[in-house]
Amino acid sequence: MNINGKPYRTIWLAQDGVSVEIIDQTRLPHALVTVTLRTLEEAAAAIKTMQVRGAPLIGVTAAYGVCLALRRDASDDGLDRAIAHLAKQRPTAVNLRWALEEMRAAVRNQPRQARVAAAYARAAEMAEADIDANRRIGGHGAKLIAAHAQRKKPGEPVNILTHCNAGWLACVDVGTATAPIYAAHDAGTKLHVWVDETRPRNQGAALTAYELGAHGVPHTIIVDNAGGHLMQQGLVDMCIVGADRVTANGDAANKIGTYLKALAAKDNGLPFYVAIPHSTIDWTLGDGRTIPIEERGAEEVLVMSGRTKDGEVVAVEIAAPGSPARNDAFDVTPARLLTGLITERGVCAASPEGLRALYPERRGRTPRAAGGEKE
Amino acid sequence: MNINGKPYRTIWLAQDGVSVEIIDQTRLPHALVTVTLRTLEEAAAAIKTMQVRGAPLIGVTAAYGVCLALRRDASDDGLDRAIAHLAKQRPTAVNLRWALEEMRAAVRNQPRQARVAAAYARAAEMAEADIDANRRIGGHGAKLIAAHAQRKKPGEPVNILTHCNAGWLACVDVGTATAPIYAAHDAGTKLHVWVDETRPRNQGAALTAYELGAHGVPHTIIVDNAGGHLMQQGLVDMCIVGADRVTANGDAANKIGTYLKALAAKDNGLPFYVAIPHSTIDWTLGDGRTIPIEERGAEEVLVMSGRTKDGEVVAVEIAAPGSPARNDAFDVTPARLLTGLITERGVCAASPEGLRALYPERRGRTPRAAGGEKE
Repeated sequence: MNINGKPYRTIWLAQDGVSVEIIDQTRLPHALVTVTLRTLEEAAAAIKTMQVRGAPLIGVTAAYGVCLALRRDASDDGLDRAIAHLAKQRPTAVNLRWALEEMRAAVRNQPRQARVAAAYARAAEMAEADIDANRRIGGHGAKLIAAHAQRKKPGEPVNILTHCNAGWLACVDVGTATAPIYAAHDAGTKLHVWVDETRPRNQGAALTAYELGAHGVPHTIIVDNAGGHLMQQGLVDMCIVGADRVTANGDAANKIGTYLKALAAKDNGLPFYVAIPHSTIDWTLGDGRTIPIEERGAEEVLVMSGRTKDGEVVAVEIAAPGSPARNDAFDVTPARLLTGLITERGVCAASPEGLRALYPERRGRTPRAAGGEKE
Repeated sequence: MNINGKPYRTIWLAQDGVSVEIIDQTRLPHALVTVTLRTLEEAAAAIKTMQVRGAPLIGVTAAYGVCLALRRDASDDGLDRAIAHLAKQRPTAVNLRWALEEMRAAVRNQPRQARVAAAYARAAEMAEADIDANRRIGGHGAKLIAAHAQRKKPGEPVNILTHCNAGWLACVDVGTATAPIYAAHDAGTKLHVWVDETRPRNQGAALTAYELGAHGVPHTIIVDNAGGHLMQQGLVDMCIVGADRVTANGDAANKIGTYLKALAAKDNGLPFYVAIPHSTIDWTLGDGRTIPIEERGAEEVLVMSGRTKDGEVVAVEIAAPGSPARNDAFDVTPARLLTGLITERGVCAASPEGLRALYPERRGRTPRAAGGEKE
C-alpha cells in the first residue's frame, strides 16, 4: 500500500538479492525507517522485538530467516537449527510454525547446493501468496460491508471497529482485517473505522491509524475501553479483526482485548468477524484453550514512547513508581462469540463444520483435544 | 490514608481557615504537589481539569467552591451563580449536583451574614460524612472479600480486579471501591488487586497503583484489554469498581470500559460489585440510558505524560500524526450485569427493589422514565 504516495510492502528482497529489508515497525508512527536483515539472528531478533509483527508477516520473515541461515549452513543440521531458533521467537502466532514447516518441506529433499535457491523461491512464493490471499479476503469481506451500506441512510458511513493492527503492516501487503476495508473504500463504499488504541504497544493508534490515514480511509482513534460504549450508542455497525491463531473449532487467539470487544458485540447484537488466511488456522488444536499465550515484558505496560513538541522520540514511565505489571499479549475469543471467519476462500461460520466446508481437504483429520497440546 | 507514612486527605482547609488545599492529581504519580484554592474560579478549574476527580471528591470540592464564592458575594444571586458555574464543570457525576443542592439548602434560609459560616460548616460535614460512609462501605465489602478468602487454598490471595480510581484519591479519604480492599487487607485477609491501567488519563496505573502501593497492598498493573483474559484463566475472584452515577434501577455510569469488564465477569460467572455512597444514587433517573456522558478532549487519548530517565515529566504524542480521536469519559453498565451494590447501608441487588429496601425513605418517589431527562 502507499505511504505518501509511494507503494510499500512490509518486507522485500534487498538490491543485493539476498538480504531482506523490512519496515521497522517499532519506529512507527514517529519515523519510517527500513532495516536490513542479513543473518538468521537478525531475522529472529526482528521477530522477537516486533520490528515485524502480525501473524502473516512473522511467517514470511521467518521464511526469509531460513534463507539467510541456509546461506551460511545448508546442511540438515543447519536447517533444523534455523527452524528451531526461529520457531521459539513468538509462541502464539501459528503462521510462524506453518511457514517454517513449509520451508522445511521445500528444502529438505533438495541437494545441498540447491537449497538456498529453493528457499528463496519458496519464501518469495509465500510473500506473493499472502498478498493474493489478502486480496481475496478483501473481496469477500467487502461484500459484507456493502450489505451494511445498503441499510444505511444516504451519506451515512458504515462504522467498522477494529482492534490492534491486522492491516498491511501485519502482512506483506493489503492486510487481513483491513483488506475488506480497503476493498470497500476503494470501491466507493462510504465507511469509517473506529481504531482501538490497543494497549500495550498501541498498534492501533500507531500502525492502523497510520496506514488508514496514509490510504485516505476516514478513521478515529479510541481507547480500548470505548468500544462497548460506542456499540451501546449505535455508533458501530460491525467489527472486523485479525487473528494470530484460529483452532479447528473456530476459537480465535488475537491481541489481548479482542475477547472483550466480541463480548460487547454479542451483547449489542452486532456482527463480529475474524479475517484470516488459511495459514492462521491450526488444524491440530481442537479448541482455543490450549493455545500458548505469550507473556511479554512489564516495560511494555509501564513505559511508552512518543514524540515531544520538538519532534524527539522519547520513552517515558507512565505508572506509579515501583508498581509491577503483567503483560499477556493475547486472549482467546470463543467461537460462540464470532459471527464468522473471512478467509481467502469465502466467509464461513466459526465452527468445525464451517471451516471444513471451506477446507474440505482437511476432512477426516482429527485435531488434538484440549489438553493434548505440548508446546 | 498514608503516603510515605504521613496521613493525607485529598482536600482540607488551609491554615488560614478559609482557603482550601488539594492534592493536584494531574501531577500524580510523578510528583506529590498540593494546590491552594482561593476562589470559586479556582475550585471550578480544579474540577474541570481534574486536579480533583472521583465523584465524591468532586462533590466536596464543589461544596468548598460555594464557600469560596460566598466570601465574595453572599447574595441569593451570588449563590445561584456559584452553583450554576460549578454544576456545569462535569456533567456525569451526580455527586456534584447533589453536593451543590445540599449547599443551597444549608445556606439559602440563613441571613446573609451567617451564610459563609453555614457553608463552611456544611462542607466540612460533607467531608466527614464521606469518610464515614466509605468506612461503612469498607466494612460491608470486606465481608464479601472474606467470604471469598474462605474458599481459597491456604496462602492463596483473593484476586480483586478494579477499574479506574475509586480509591481514597477519588474521595476525601478511604475510597469507595478500595474501602473493602483496605478494610480486608488491614484485617489480615490475603488479597491481591489487578489494577486496570484505565485509559485515557491512566487513573488506575497512576492513582490506584500509587495509593495501593503507598498502603502496602499487593497489586499488579494490567492494560484495560487484559481483564477478560485473566478471568478466563481463573486469575480473578471478584471485581469491585466505583461509579459516578447510579440510577434508581441500579444502572451504573462509571469510567469508560467498566461495561466491558462487567460483560467479562458475567461471561465467566464472577461477581461484579459497584461500591457507592448514597450521594452517587440519582433517584430522579429511572435507568442509565439518560445519564449524560461527558465527552472530553482528544488530546487525552493522543498525548501522554510520563517521566523520562532523568526524572523530568514530559508530554509525548503517541498516535499516528494527524489521526483524530474521540474521548467519551464514561459508559453505563446495565444493572443486569451487576452482582450487587455495596453502599454505606449494606449490600443490595442492583435493582429498584434492592435500592429501595436499603433506602426506604425513597419509597413512593417516581423516577423519570428514560427519555424524560433534560440536562
